[in-house]
Amino acid sequence: MPLPPRLAGLLPSLPVLDWARRYDRATLASDLVAALIVTIMLIPQSLAYALLAGLPPEVGLYASVAPLLLYAIFGTSRVLAVGPVAVVSLMTAAAIGEHAVAGTPAYWAVAITLAFLSGAMLLLMGFLRLGFLANFLSHPVISGFISASGLLIAASQLKTLMGVKAEGHNFIELVHALMLQAPNIHGLTLAVGLLATAFLFWVRKGLKPLFVKLGLKARLADALAKAGPVAAIAVTAGLAWTLDWQAQGLKLVGSVPQGLPPLTLPLWDLALWQALAVPALLISVVGFVESVSVGQTLAAKRRQRIEPDQELVALGASNLSAAFTGGFPVTGGFARSVVNFDAGAQTPAAGVYTALGIMLAALFLTPALYYLPQATLAATIIVAVLSLVDLGMLKRTWVFSKTDFIALLATLLMTLARGVEAGLVVGVAVSLALFLYRTSRPHMAEVGLVPGTQHFRNVLRHQVGTSPRLVSLRIDGSLYFANARVLEDWVNDVVAEHPQAQHIVLQCSAVNDIDASALESLEAIDRRLCDSGIAFHLSEVKGPVMDRLKDTHFLRDLSGRVFLSHYQAVHELAPEIGQAV
Amino acid sequence: MPLPPRLAGLLPSLPVLDWARRYDRATLASDLVAALIVTIMLIPQSLAYALLAGLPPEVGLYASVAPLLLYAIFGTSRVLAVGPVAVVSLMTAAAIGEHAVAGTPAYWAVAITLAFLSGAMLLLMGFLRLGFLANFLSHPVISGFISASGLLIAASQLKTLMGVKAEGHNFIELVHALMLQAPNIHGLTLAVGLLATAFLFWVRKGLKPLFVKLGLKARLADALAKAGPVAAIAVTAGLAWTLDWQAQGLKLVGSVPQGLPPLTLPLWDLALWQALAVPALLISVVGFVESVSVGQTLAAKRRQRIEPDQELVALGASNLSAAFTGGFPVTGGFARSVVNFDAGAQTPAAGVYTALGIMLAALFLTPALYYLPQATLAATIIVAVLSLVDLGMLKRTWVFSKTDFIALLATLLMTLARGVEAGLVVGVAVSLALFLYRTSRPHMAEVGLVPGTQHFRNVLRHQVGTSPRLVSLRIDGSLYFANARVLEDWVNDVVAEHPQAQHIVLQCSAVNDIDASALESLEAIDRRLCDSGIAFHLSEVKGPVMDRLKDTHFLRDLSGRVFLSHYQAVHELAPEIGQAV
Repeated sequence: MPLPPRLAGLLPSLPVLDWARRYDRATLASDLVAALIVTIMLIPQSLAYALLAGLPPEVGLYASVAPLLLYAIFGTSRVLAVGPVAVVSLMTAAAIGEHAVAGTPAYWAVAITLAFLSGAMLLLMGFLRLGFLANFLSHPVISGFISASGLLIAASQLKTLMGVKAEGHNFIELVHALMLQAPNIHGLTLAVGLLATAFLFWVRKGLKPLFVKLGLKARLADALAKAGPVAAIAVTAGLAWTLDWQAQGLKLVGSVPQGLPPLTLPLWDLALWQALAVPALLISVVGFVESVSVGQTLAAKRRQRIEPDQELVALGASNLSAAFTGGFPVTGGFARSVVNFDAGAQTPAAGVYTALGIMLAALFLTPALYYLPQATLAATIIVAVLSLVDLGMLKRTWVFSKTDFIALLATLLMTLARGVEAGLVVGVAVSLALFLYRTSRPHMAEVGLVPGTQHFRNVLRHQVGTSPRLVSLRIDGSLYFANARVLEDWVNDVVAEHPQAQHIVLQCSAVNDIDASALESLEAIDRRLCDSGIAFHLSEVKGPVMDRLKDTHFLRDLSGRVFLSHYQAVHELAPEIGQAV
Repeated sequence: MPLPPRLAGLLPSLPVLDWARRYDRATLASDLVAALIVTIMLIPQSLAYALLAGLPPEVGLYASVAPLLLYAIFGTSRVLAVGPVAVVSLMTAAAIGEHAVAGTPAYWAVAITLAFLSGAMLLLMGFLRLGFLANFLSHPVISGFISASGLLIAASQLKTLMGVKAEGHNFIELVHALMLQAPNIHGLTLAVGLLATAFLFWVRKGLKPLFVKLGLKARLADALAKAGPVAAIAVTAGLAWTLDWQAQGLKLVGSVPQGLPPLTLPLWDLALWQALAVPALLISVVGFVESVSVGQTLAAKRRQRIEPDQELVALGASNLSAAFTGGFPVTGGFARSVVNFDAGAQTPAAGVYTALGIMLAALFLTPALYYLPQATLAATIIVAVLSLVDLGMLKRTWVFSKTDFIALLATLLMTLARGVEAGLVVGVAVSLALFLYRTSRPHMAEVGLVPGTQHFRNVLRHQVGTSPRLVSLRIDGSLYFANARVLEDWVNDVVAEHPQAQHIVLQCSAVNDIDASALESLEAIDRRLCDSGIAFHLSEVKGPVMDRLKDTHFLRDLSGRVFLSHYQAVHELAPEIGQAV
């Protein structure tokens, strides 16, 4: 028996039921190929991001199994690949750093708890349909935040690349600490790191064309090029083993435990939960925004859609599963999802196969990782995150809008100077404040009739006809509390400038809404104009605004009238002032 | 030599220079009459409001001298009467209560410091032209706050009326404490208080008609009626003296020091300043809003104007002068300014004469105040503040707009439950959040052509012509970060519903602004539509928005075109889809 719709709406929907029943052999083949490529790409990435988060490398593998399975059940994107990602790993490190020492079991336990809290919040936001909250992260804030995070991450990896120890809570401290360590640079480590970095940069641009030149088909060349990072890992690990680099002081990944993800529980510590609440919320929102924008872009390419509120549920389930299988906060990653899509993944089953691939790696591959130089992983991260840094955005935003530029710069500088959480919070606050400021001073103009037409235009920009006794005004914005008094002031000014005025007509074609404060201001304007013997009229009031006004005293008490069009207003009032239009 | 304009703009302007040079005998007469009436009204009010603020009664007189003089020099309103007012006195009591015990010299010193900080802030806001910040106090927040303050003040005066002691930090605590004190009511005090209250209520409505009936001219009757409170004071003080009510336990005002306002200095205590910063800011903003709205209303009646940023300077100077002459925070009062206006005040010189009147009262009248029952002053306050309480506003706001109602109710309840500061802060936060929420989901509609016209209307509301291959959309709101993704989602939905769509045209007539996030969303929409083989067009883009777009990649990369009118778009695209309009 189907559930009544109200009740059904409360249950999580299961997109898996939709695609699983139509699953066939062709889809299986596509998904398997995509899964293989993504698995190869994901292994070094998940190790590296776990290290970035301050966790043992195997935790990266654990976080790439259960979340993929859960996303396959609840997610609405066909191709999103969920797992550890750079920015969320950085935010994780920043959040846990205050509560435990990196590398300790206590640190891992806090990471698990953070994934649990983040998962619970995402799930709750999904059930309450609060996905729209993520919209308050404006694009300048996100791009400033991502660029600054990329710089922070790259700076944090330089110490591994240089073979030194250097800590810092922000970009300046980090760079300063690195400069102090310059004399202690470990030459071999730096050489391996720089070569790996150079190779990985070249792989991004040069490997595929090379393969194509060697006669491979484009698609195969593309797939092989994706394995470039694995080649860097294999080669440097092989060299470290044969040349015994460890004896020369080069740091290796070392022994990584073999086996399936463990079953774990978050810490039930209310004080810790309170302390982690804000970071968990920020991680949830950032992860959600990154995931949804990737998912939407890819879905649109095949005329599919994703359901943001359902995505919250899916990401929530993924993070909860990460918490119960020894992982840390995860989300849908940009690069790997694009790879999954390009490799031809048709359904989330590709994610299931990827999870199986990672499971096999965790079971059998970890001994081979012993000889992997940490500098190679650092190079992997640096190459990945520098593609996130887009400082050209600063100039483009400056040209487009100064207010957006201020929000971008504030987020960027604050993230670099005070860390990820301060950067995000300040960025959102600044962008909201700027939006409010902008809407609090809408564009206002005195307008006049363009000769020979029925159109009214700004008297300052156009040659138009006006009358000292009938003043036409236009406001370009909804009227609400922050700009209501601005309108009052402006009308006062206009009256002072037009001592002969008998009628003032306000053209409301751009007024999408009027709130109680604005209504009060309109009443005050009408009363004051009336006191000075001027009639106040409105024109071109929109349907929904008129619906709202019609039940109020304002329309009944209005000294003037409400006209359908501004031209009609001027036409009908002209005889009263003894003037032709 | 005149100052260069840039430099002159930095100096405070002196409106006094404008009106003083045209001062004549007729103006003098008008101003003197008005000053007499306002002085008579102000004496009991300033005593009462000082008591409300927890200060000795004479402080009310001190706060009514220097501020009036300073406002006369710097203020732009011709008739505003500055001095202690009810709501600001309540806020003063709430702010100082945490730092000193009412009635002690330390308490007075903190009040002086609060006036100093508030004055400095107002002055700074004036120089920085930050008057617009007051606009973020929406009308529902102000009216909820004023009504709740009125109830709080009235409740706080009931103990004086009942002759008992009762303290409480909020409305519920106060009412509870009063109920516990019911058995201890002092009968004589309650009788005097209730009779005075009843008399004062009657004075408001019944006294003027009575005088008129007795044959007085309307204007004289009006002026005499204003003296009603003075009559209540004289009669009860006289009775207290002749019948020796003090011996029967009735509380009198007692000895009030005779003399001019003293010279005082604020406390130079940085920790105290920090603690008082937020209350001082709130007092400044509330005082400014009250003052400016009164000033604007009265100025408009004579086709005069006030300059809000200059008002900040004037109120700042007034409060600083209060701090240096033993006063407490002041602002332009509603009732007394209206009285000043009605009595015919022509220039701020009326304020100077009022200040002289109050000075005379402080010099010679205070001994006569000894026998004044405190219950009479409590009655004066109760009658004054109950006129501020307007609970009918709740219903009117509910009918007009649910979001405004929520902001109003939140402010009202929060002020009653947690005090004036919490009420204001929560009210502003709630109203901003609701505004952002509302603008984050603008009205969006699929539109179609109204047959026989060039107009497009919502397909859900009107019988219009549409095509499955050319979809017309309209959004009623500016595009910014909080709603940009909503537009993306909506266009995705529309595409899913119109599998045959080849063209989508977005009508932008209501889009007053587009920010960087919205631009990014438009680009994403265009890219995704392009990937699905759909061309994306815009129509009726406003001039300023077009100015902003024309320097961007968006217009160059746009798959479709930008049309001047929506009709033109449909007309020109019709051949491409093989269909007539």
